[in-house]
Amino acid sequence: MTQDLTTIISSATKTVEISRAMPTVIIGERINPTGRKAVLAALKEGNFDMVRQDAVNQVKAGAVVLDVNAGVPGVDEPALIQKMMGIVMEETDVPLCIDTADPAALEAALSVYSGKALINSVNGEERSLEAVLPLVKEHGAAVIGLCMDDDGIPETPEKRLQVAGKIIERAGKLGIGPEDIVIDPLALTMGADSSAGILAIESIKLIIAEFGVNITMGASNISFGMPDRKYINSTFIAMAILAGLTCPITNPMVAQVSIAIQAADLVMGRDDYGMAWIKAYRARQKALEAQS
Amino acid sequence: MTQDLTTIISSATKTVEISRAMPTVIIGERINPTGRKAVLAALKEGNFDMVRQDAVNQVKAGAVVLDVNAGVPGVDEPALIQKMMGIVMEETDVPLCIDTADPAALEAALSVYSGKALINSVNGEERSLEAVLPLVKEHGAAVIGLCMDDDGIPETPEKRLQVAGKIIERAGKLGIGPEDIVIDPLALTMGADSSAGILAIESIKLIIAEFGVNITMGASNISFGMPDRKYINSTFIAMAILAGLTCPITNPMVAQVSIAIQAADLVMGRDDYGMAWIKAYRARQKALEAQS
Repeated sequence: MTQDLTTIISSATKTVEISRAMPTVIIGERINPTGRKAVLAALKEGNFDMVRQDAVNQVKAGAVVLDVNAGVPGVDEPALIQKMMGIVMEETDVPLCIDTADPAALEAALSVYSGKALINSVNGEERSLEAVLPLVKEHGAAVIGLCMDDDGIPETPEKRLQVAGKIIERAGKLGIGPEDIVIDPLALTMGADSSAGILAIESIKLIIAEFGVNITMGASNISFGMPDRKYINSTFIAMAILAGLTCPITNPMVAQVSIAIQAADLVMGRDDYGMAWIKAYRARQKALEAQS
Repeated sequence: MTQDLTTIISSATKTVEISRAMPTVIIGERINPTGRKAVLAALKEGNFDMVRQDAVNQVKAGAVVLDVNAGVPGVDEPALIQKMMGIVMEETDVPLCIDTADPAALEAALSVYSGKALINSVNGEERSLEAVLPLVKEHGAAVIGLCMDDDGIPETPEKRLQVAGKIIERAGKLGIGPEDIVIDPLALTMGADSSAGILAIESIKLIIAEFGVNITMGASNISFGMPDRKYINSTFIAMAILAGLTCPITNPMVAQVSIAIQAADLVMGRDDYGMAWIKAYRARQKALEAQS
């Protein structure tokens, strides 16, 4: 068992430590037009009200980092991501996770960011490694490494471990330490393959045992096509936290998910005397009273 | 890693297999007067309506085994547990978990039971080993072994493993195989000690790696004194299932807990195509429609 690593990211004014000794870090996923027609339309019209709201509300709901994705088809992504980041940095002071597949947009985003960003993402494909890792190094950022490569997404935990190892090794050659690599083992849809959940969890265990790195994961794909998805997602996140997940990318405004993450931290012994649990409970009660 | 064992228990007509390859077996905890004033009073008056209701409703809610506890102070426990078991066996056909600290009540209970019972419980105390294990052997039952002994409840997973080992060894000397021992690592209150949850989970992992036995646990103590307990209990059970818990003793009528167990089985890859998940969802929808 390798020693557990700590990943540090920051905004201009705020530092966030990610490690298995600390409470789970929620990366808010909502600032992303993918699959959200209203947001897509608003962004095309230059209306950033929803970006503003999603930023504020996610932080209020417990997000410690915000993912920003500007993937609007037919739009100048470098300019758009800069604009969106500017708005998020105006409204909140949390570190950002720069989410783009476009190296030009990534470079534009990094150029306007103050602090140490988390880049989302690099993967094991030659093209991706060559485009992204030098930017990670140049800007002193941290980066999410997806367990997929030129052959696609591997079907076994052992092969996902290999891809993680390849990304960590290639980063190391550029002087990027493993503490700045956050691995995403990839959680696919259980509706298509019943073993998708346990495969992701077994991958986490192997990757941690070998490299001690921090782990991120989107936990929504897993339940695609199933009813009552919030229960599946929240249960899956809690189990993955036991396996070693440290910074899930999720929507903290789904109460079921936020509560499960807080409960998992309590079970992991990361919430002394349940003080965070009790504080969150009181906030929920207050919100309920305000509604009634 | 030892091979995983299968524990088989039965009623007169129904067999239940407990193993990590199968969906989680819920042992319904409700037929127990401890801390339930109305039930205590009713039992003292010879009124068994609540026993009847708790039996039927728990099975309806997903219990596959029913715990029966007749611990009413000042009452003839051997006679009472026989009476209660008779009623439960009239109303349902599931195997029973005979829950008593009184060897005379245990003997009385076993004498009226048809099938292979689960006995709750033996522990590592000399007195308990000597009183309970011969009855387990004589009646060909299975037994829950609690990780505590003459020195109390050990404070480390390693020492809980030792107590589990002692129970398994002593049982073996009487010809009771490890497949008939279900270990309860004991989950204490996190409000008193923040590490109680992770300690129980680490104990499960160690015990399974060494002995491959099935694991039970009450998951309600863990949240004692905290608000919103159902969320803590359900999250804790899901995490413990990942660690290797196979037959929690819990209240399946708490929807949050039942749903988390079903979701955990889905994540573990024990629910092909999510068929059980979808069926349970439809049953919930139907119940909601019936209410409205």
